[in-house]
Amino acid sequence: MEWEKIFMRVRERAPLVHCITNAVTVNDCANIVLAAGGSPTMANNPAEVEEITARCDALVLNLGQIDEVRMEAMLLAGRRANALGHPVILDPVGVGASRLRTETAARLLEEVRFALIRGNASEILALSGRGNGARGVDASADDLIREENLRERAAAAAALSRETGAVVAVSGVIDLVAGMERTAAVRNGHPMMARITGSGCMLGCLAGVFLGAGPELPFEAAAAAVMTMGICGEIAAERALGSGAGTGSFRMHLLDAVSTLSGTEFEERQKLAYL
Amino acid sequence: MEWEKIFMRVRERAPLVHCITNAVTVNDCANIVLAAGGSPTMANNPAEVEEITARCDALVLNLGQIDEVRMEAMLLAGRRANALGHPVILDPVGVGASRLRTETAARLLEEVRFALIRGNASEILALSGRGNGARGVDASADDLIREENLRERAAAAAALSRETGAVVAVSGVIDLVAGMERTAAVRNGHPMMARITGSGCMLGCLAGVFLGAGPELPFEAAAAAVMTMGICGEIAAERALGSGAGTGSFRMHLLDAVSTLSGTEFEERQKLAYL
Amino acid sequence: MEWEKIFMRVRERAPLVHCITNAVTVNDCANIVLAAGGSPTMANNPAEVEEITARCDALVLNLGQIDEVRMEAMLLAGRRANALGHPVILDPVGVGASRLRTETAARLLEEVRFALIRGNASEILALSGRGNGARGVDASADDLIREENLRERAAAAAALSRETGAVVAVSGVIDLVAGMERTAAVRNGHPMMARITGSGCMLGCLAGVFLGAGPELPFEAAAAAVMTMGICGEIAAERALGSGAGTGSFRMHLLDAVSTLSGTEFEERQKLAYL
Repeated sequence: MEWEKIFMRVRERAPLVHCITNAVTVNDCANIVLAAGGSPTMANNPAEVEEITARCDALVLNLGQIDEVRMEAMLLAGRRANALGHPVILDPVGVGASRLRTETAARLLEEVRFALIRGNASEILALSGRGNGARGVDASADDLIREENLRERAAAAAALSRETGAVVAVSGVIDLVAGMERTAAVRNGHPMMARITGSGCMLGCLAGVFLGAGPELPFEAAAAAVMTMGICGEIAAERALGSGAGTGSFRMHLLDAVSTLSGTEFEERQKLAYL
Repeated sequence: MEWEKIFMRVRERAPLVHCITNAVTVNDCANIVLAAGGSPTMANNPAEVEEITARCDALVLNLGQIDEVRMEAMLLAGRRANALGHPVILDPVGVGASRLRTETAARLLEEVRFALIRGNASEILALSGRGNGARGVDASADDLIREENLRERAAAAAALSRETGAVVAVSGVIDLVAGMERTAAVRNGHPMMARITGSGCMLGCLAGVFLGAGPELPFEAAAAAVMTMGICGEIAAERALGSGAGTGSFRMHLLDAVSTLSGTEFEERQKLAYL
Repeated sequence: MEWEKIFMRVRERAPLVHCITNAVTVNDCANIVLAAGGSPTMANNPAEVEEITARCDALVLNLGQIDEVRMEAMLLAGRRANALGHPVILDPVGVGASRLRTETAARLLEEVRFALIRGNASEILALSGRGNGARGVDASADDLIREENLRERAAAAAALSRETGAVVAVSGVIDLVAGMERTAAVRNGHPMMARITGSGCMLGCLAGVFLGAGPELPFEAAAAAVMTMGICGEIAAERALGSGAGTGSFRMHLLDAVSTLSGTEFEERQKLAYL
């Protein structure tokens, strides 16, 4: 597979990733981009985002705490990134939890061409018009991907991929990555990832690093990001739980793992299976 | 006491806590809600907060970095939460330090019914109309609760509780929890808690988890949150200082302690005394 | 030198530092102020910043994620701090990366008198009108200070100091501190500092603590902050890398080191050399 190529490219290029995102996890997002070998810029003022994004390698649009000003910034930056051929990632945080989020996501999907859409199960169902409404930013228990509904959910993700032209990554106990031609399940990760804020937002920005490094391989870059996050979650949980620690230690070890993960460790641990 | 009942309820319900709060500590707040077993939502756009808060179990309004838009969001969400009978927590950050904060708090107290008001000694004095003005977001040395002024301060907190109908929790070396019928001092905690940002904001959100789980027991839920925070501060200080470390380690251990605290540990360490 | 005097003053006064800054690193900034023995206030609403800053000992203006409202707050607070004789620090994040940032910095330099300007090499070159435009918030490789260009860069920093009346601190592998009469190179620090977000922003706020404690010694206070940050970066890297850890651990150890650094350790490790 092309993973090694993407990791090598990250090291060579140190992609500059422009993230327009919420205040809750913006610090975690900048730190994971740096940990992965990229360079983050979190500019969110409509007066400068076009200029900023033009110098970047990828753009991440995250709907957490969305407001009108940030929405304008996202549209301006998204169109400019499209014009320049930069990969754009959508992280539809909270879609389905309010009408505002759902409408905002719909408008972004109309006006911006995405290389990747990454969300949790509830968010991706909502985007597909199949959701029952999320309770908040965490996926509803009913919506979770399990072995029993895996093929059905994979088909829904693949359908959203065909509709939008974007690779679709669904996060959960089992992750899905659906492209135009292939769909894969990733069985990496750890339940502790759901006990810290920002696991999802960080994955979106990590994908920004990988797609910035390999924009012509969006499926591979997205899958590599999903596996990397899952593997690092496993490593972090082993370290945190091994020492009887909790979610504070887990957060730290997660960033540690992203900043030190080797290609060999990645290959040994990755659990991607094509469907 | 009813502590065990509240902890059990947190585990059963995983309360969804809506926090409208400042950018300084919003990440810490979301993480402590998750560490305690709740699920956080930090939506702050007036266009969606009513819808978001309607699906939640508790609402926390924090005045840090207050602006007009967030104020509007707080009023809308607060009224909706009141209409639905959800407990609402006020964290009057910086009240007394500027006219804006003082007026904002006064307006919120007029328009929203609070289940709990949680602040430091300077903030609670300012709310009671007894303050001399805080220097910033930290309590002034003159205002601190000590053994000498404990009963006088408890009486002031109890008076504020009677005026507002809310339980009043005052944070400091000695914490106070004052309800309509009872007042208690809590002698848990550690001076390191004042050397990281967000100890107070996190306590407000932790109280959101506990009141969301036990809305019919606001005094017990507030007292349980105050004790939990204090106990976890003690545990974190023991771990951080034991290894010669500083405030960075303390922050991590604090979150660890909240995410792993057992009922037994709570009972052994809690130092609540009714006045 | 006067370092010991400044550290003693920090302990005596616990300076209140008002930081108007971006959401990305605001939490790190508040935490480093506390770690260093100051008390942070991050108020950013134009309606209250004058009142807030009047009670503080120093003001830090950071251009990250700048918008019109925060710009207004910076002008109001900056003028008030000037009127009261409080030291004001400028951290021109991203100057050179967009027209907005460059114009904003120019306007602040016109309307506010700064005691210290602290930026990375690209930002300081841009402020001096010598830059080629930064790619983002990290310094461009071409702009970095090396032994070969050290004297040339020192002369440029000294020129900017004479033009503005501010001490100028340039961060990089080699740091420069240029005052009206003296220029020094500081060879403390570690490459890990560039792999976490906020190293620069935190240094700006740390300088706020030191200048707040010793406003009549701006060169010494700025140099002490630069050395402290570099030394703590070294200590943090030794601790993090010694245990095979990564950037997550490094962040924690950095805060630990700032909160526990002794005067003896500072003296032994500091590598300041006058040019």
